[in-house]
Amino acid sequence: MFLSARAIAEMAGQEKVHFLNDAAVRTGKSLGDAAGLRNIGVHLISVRPGHYSTEHHVHLFEEECVYVLSGQGTAFVGQDQHAIGPGDFIACPLNGVAHSMLASGTEPLVCLVMGQRLNQDVTDYPNRKKRLYRNNGEWNLVEQADIQHIKR
Amino acid sequence: MFLSARAIAEMAGQEKVHFLNDAAVRTGKSLGDAAGLRNIGVHLISVRPGHYSTEHHVHLFEEECVYVLSGQGTAFVGQDQHAIGPGDFIACPLNGVAHSMLASGTEPLVCLVMGQRLNQDVTDYPNRKKRLYRNNGEWNLVEQADIQHIKR
Amino acid sequence: MFLSARAIAEMAGQEKVHFLNDAAVRTGKSLGDAAGLRNIGVHLISVRPGHYSTEHHVHLFEEECVYVLSGQGTAFVGQDQHAIGPGDFIACPLNGVAHSMLASGTEPLVCLVMGQRLNQDVTDYPNRKKRLYRNNGEWNLVEQADIQHIKR
Amino acid sequence: MFLSARAIAEMAGQEKVHFLNDAAVRTGKSLGDAAGLRNIGVHLISVRPGHYSTEHHVHLFEEECVYVLSGQGTAFVGQDQHAIGPGDFIACPLNGVAHSMLASGTEPLVCLVMGQRLNQDVTDYPNRKKRLYRNNGEWNLVEQADIQHIKR
Repeated sequence: MFLSARAIAEMAGQEKVHFLNDAAVRTGKSLGDAAGLRNIGVHLISVRPGHYSTEHHVHLFEEECVYVLSGQGTAFVGQDQHAIGPGDFIACPLNGVAHSMLASGTEPLVCLVMGQRLNQDVTDYPNRKKRLYRNNGEWNLVEQADIQHIKR
Repeated sequence: MFLSARAIAEMAGQEKVHFLNDAAVRTGKSLGDAAGLRNIGVHLISVRPGHYSTEHHVHLFEEECVYVLSGQGTAFVGQDQHAIGPGDFIACPLNGVAHSMLASGTEPLVCLVMGQRLNQDVTDYPNRKKRLYRNNGEWNLVEQADIQHIKR
Repeated sequence: MFLSARAIAEMAGQEKVHFLNDAAVRTGKSLGDAAGLRNIGVHLISVRPGHYSTEHHVHLFEEECVYVLSGQGTAFVGQDQHAIGPGDFIACPLNGVAHSMLASGTEPLVCLVMGQRLNQDVTDYPNRKKRLYRNNGEWNLVEQADIQHIKR
Repeated sequence: MFLSARAIAEMAGQEKVHFLNDAAVRTGKSLGDAAGLRNIGVHLISVRPGHYSTEHHVHLFEEECVYVLSGQGTAFVGQDQHAIGPGDFIACPLNGVAHSMLASGTEPLVCLVMGQRLNQDVTDYPNRKKRLYRNNGEWNLVEQADIQHIKR
């Protein structure tokens, strides 16, 4: 399945505000969905200056990565910060740390975001003290304080 | 995990000749491996003019896609041909058709190639009339003519 | 791997009280573990008269089934009750209903319990109004009332 | 889902001759299918005296096990032989050895056979020098001599 740069440019982007963070706003085009991919997600995203790409988070099961195409930004990876620009790569392996990006330049931060699409995942939002359980499309959000950890 | 464009530029690329096609030669840098990803593969590949990116093939289980960063080429997708350049996207969904690329310009064809990394896959090479079974790192290649199809 | 009936008889059974129900007490021998199985669980369980096999529950991902070897009991399957004895079979397919058994006879209820062993599962305990999220050995128990259902 | 011993007794058994061995003949009732299980297989099988339960084989991915309910037989596990009867358990863990059973008594050998149902598996038949690749319902049988092992 072939999607030309022109066809991609003509795709309507979808603006998405993160359900946990009004400052996390991105306009995305799902190249993967448009091309029929089901098990990996491939999104071309654009983040306007001053906005975050997503709420700071870490997936416990899904691997994800970002390749910067244009613009300038700041990547927050665990406790680290990195100035990012074209050609930089940010990966989120399993057992990793929370991550997010801020478009800190004067033009939009444009990235290719790729990741697994699993039926089940657990996502932690450390700054919100919340955990999201995703199972077959059902999204369960809980306060981390409400979780009872059962010892075996 | 962060890999700067400079760090990526300084990585040593690995030249790989496809085991079924001496004209399929690519120099690759595994950004995913360098960054600790295990379940998705992310490779920055460069194909010199006149070379193919890979032997024409189709995966029966692993999804794969390509985003062109620079250079010019020809993408072969099933029976179709497409002139490709920067910003074009080629996806290989399941139950898809065989695909490959030729660097048909005057400079190297540089692409970001992403895909699933499954423990098991089956790959068909229609031009070679061969099928590859990959199971937990064991690669079994057979002539399609030697396969007995058992009806149930 | 072979386990003779004698070797099984000589295995020490492990008494387990369900963490949510003191009346759910079973003595189990893990034939599967003893024989090296990792992806399916096979347990020979014995429930004394008056005890339950487990807290009433339903798995959202793991399939499970029970084959009765000896003794008498009552199987609770969703809203139904069934008198059970040797040779009866109870299966818990996906998208099923909650189930449990009571040893309601005068001798122990002895069953072979088999099921998948997945890295991730969600288990509901309707009578406790609790949900258990199991992910790679981490057990998270929450009150169903504390779950926020995110609409997409 | 509940299947009574009586309902099971009234189920019509299906006689199956192994596609690689005319002496491997069993009459089976799929309790799992009858009860709606999809990811584990549970079969009540009966093997007449002088017949084998299956062609000697080993699965590379699917775990399988057998619990003997009645009758007498001989279990072949790798190079070992075991006289088997009621209450004996035979497990086939991953990276295991080939196995099969012979009904060597005067009455049918009746067993409960349980195993995973994966979309992909590889099965070796050492006595036939054949390998079966099973991928999403497509069965590909090849002579082991026709397999080219690709080194990476």
